[in-house]
Amino acid sequence: MQRVPFETMKSEFTRVLLASGLAEDRARLCARVHAENSRDGVYSHGLNSFPGFVARVREGGGIDIHATPRKVGGFGALEQWDGESGLGILNATTCMERAVALAREHGIGCVALRNTNHWMRAGTYGLQAADAGRIGICWTNTTRLMPPHGSAERRIGNNPLVFAIPREGGHILLDMAISQFSGGKTLIHSRSGQPFPVPGGYDSQGNLTCDAAAIRQSNRPLPIGYWKGSGLAMALDLVAALASGGRTTYQIALEGGERGVSQTFIAIDIIRIAGEEGLRQVVEETIGDLHTAPPLREGEPVAYPGERMLQRRRENLEKGVPVDSEFWEQVLAL
Amino acid sequence: MQRVPFETMKSEFTRVLLASGLAEDRARLCARVHAENSRDGVYSHGLNSFPGFVARVREGGGIDIHATPRKVGGFGALEQWDGESGLGILNATTCMERAVALAREHGIGCVALRNTNHWMRAGTYGLQAADAGRIGICWTNTTRLMPPHGSAERRIGNNPLVFAIPREGGHILLDMAISQFSGGKTLIHSRSGQPFPVPGGYDSQGNLTCDAAAIRQSNRPLPIGYWKGSGLAMALDLVAALASGGRTTYQIALEGGERGVSQTFIAIDIIRIAGEEGLRQVVEETIGDLHTAPPLREGEPVAYPGERMLQRRRENLEKGVPVDSEFWEQVLAL
Repeated sequence: MQRVPFETMKSEFTRVLLASGLAEDRARLCARVHAENSRDGVYSHGLNSFPGFVARVREGGGIDIHATPRKVGGFGALEQWDGESGLGILNATTCMERAVALAREHGIGCVALRNTNHWMRAGTYGLQAADAGRIGICWTNTTRLMPPHGSAERRIGNNPLVFAIPREGGHILLDMAISQFSGGKTLIHSRSGQPFPVPGGYDSQGNLTCDAAAIRQSNRPLPIGYWKGSGLAMALDLVAALASGGRTTYQIALEGGERGVSQTFIAIDIIRIAGEEGLRQVVEETIGDLHTAPPLREGEPVAYPGERMLQRRRENLEKGVPVDSEFWEQVLAL
Repeated sequence: MQRVPFETMKSEFTRVLLASGLAEDRARLCARVHAENSRDGVYSHGLNSFPGFVARVREGGGIDIHATPRKVGGFGALEQWDGESGLGILNATTCMERAVALAREHGIGCVALRNTNHWMRAGTYGLQAADAGRIGICWTNTTRLMPPHGSAERRIGNNPLVFAIPREGGHILLDMAISQFSGGKTLIHSRSGQPFPVPGGYDSQGNLTCDAAAIRQSNRPLPIGYWKGSGLAMALDLVAALASGGRTTYQIALEGGERGVSQTFIAIDIIRIAGEEGLRQVVEETIGDLHTAPPLREGEPVAYPGERMLQRRRENLEKGVPVDSEFWEQVLAL
């Protein structure tokens, strides 16, 4: 497996984005986020999505790379922003920054963002809030990716949802799509033939299956918790679209592609409320309790959300970030 | 099946609670909430839990029936309240009312509540916010009810989570525990031998199973989405406990029983943001899209969260609320 130093990856990404017409601060931000996603083991939204991102930046494809998000409404601790069809990473970073500032002023801050584009890895913005000492909660809607419970036709988004809690030794980061498995993971398992560890959808006969190829054929991936995830996806979609004045999953799908999505960013000024020492004690005690739960498999202790990611990050910073050579060569040639 | 008029149920509950020493406004509130839960088909947190509730009111059992919740901290749109070990229904109603008021002032309002007791049905407080024209989001922690992903030992709560969106024809109400099935439902299926429609946990050999008795034996109910629900339960627990300065699931379990839980109440003034007509259009369009998804079973169209509950409510208001005669006789004799 080829590995590339994190700083090399970041600077190559920056070089390519500058050459693609992005202004310098935008190029640096989008390069850093993609490189950090690969650094943290989220390759699908790091190196592996970078060539496609560059193509969209160069060809347009509905993204206005010069657009700047702007506040269009709201009051007090709740603001409505318009992403102006700009870069998803820039818009999301700006809005979580604003939510963090609102939380300083009001205890809790919420920014609802419309007309934005794919933010890549959802967890990026949770980590941003946690780095600023805030609890971060955010989610995005998507186009239709799953059938709702009771139908075999895709109508609801998988609407990734993030909870991040600041922690000195590494933030707690829950970053989960409402589908049991992502489309990317389903494709990988479908190609390799390796079954999912738990059912990820239905086959064409309507039976639960761990066979990713059968799920791709039936087009019936599963929401987490069946009817529960189905309802949660709808609720997240409506809150993001209503609060931002933006598109719902239904409206995104009507227009084709997946442009102009709606997102919600919430920050809570937890250090001012709980105190640094109070925060630390409560979080460490709960993590300690998880860590002492007898593991099902020897040598695989229960992990808190984000713990495995942090181990991967440390390994990748030390040894270099693993790259799919095909994608890496593409980047070097750009 | 015996049915009892809703008003009869409410007045019987009120009579019993007044005779049990609750002040009049408290008796009326707790009677109404229990009766409405049965009216809406949530019998487990309505009539069926009422005799136990009365016993706790009469015997104390850690609940101070005269306590009044009070604000103890926070600033701006985020407040910290102490439930003073009082009635869970009273504390939760007071805190959602306060979150609704904060949302009027700040766009979004958040009240974190500590030292409170079981709020019965989580959806009650979502409906309260929606009745006030707000989006309501709330959750509670619980004692240890599920093993975290990777262990067979119970360490995490099932931490019911609610999203409610106001709608003239009947609110959207997602009311879900983070376990795939509740303890109550597992007991019912275990007794009747009727299998769950989907796996609800593991058997003692560690295989996924729909057999409720096997799940009770192994003590391994399943969080929704496996590792995802496991992480979500932990995140909800920490946010509620940190923001309120209250107990975590770990701390609740240490003390035994399930007293002094922590809860979070969030309200968003969506009508001021989206407008009544904007809200209506977006919600109806999305519901319409769900309703036109081809159903898997003829005559069972896809429902939005809360839709079946509303049908049940209408039926129960018209025909009377179905009662388990054993519980109803108990109430009449109290």
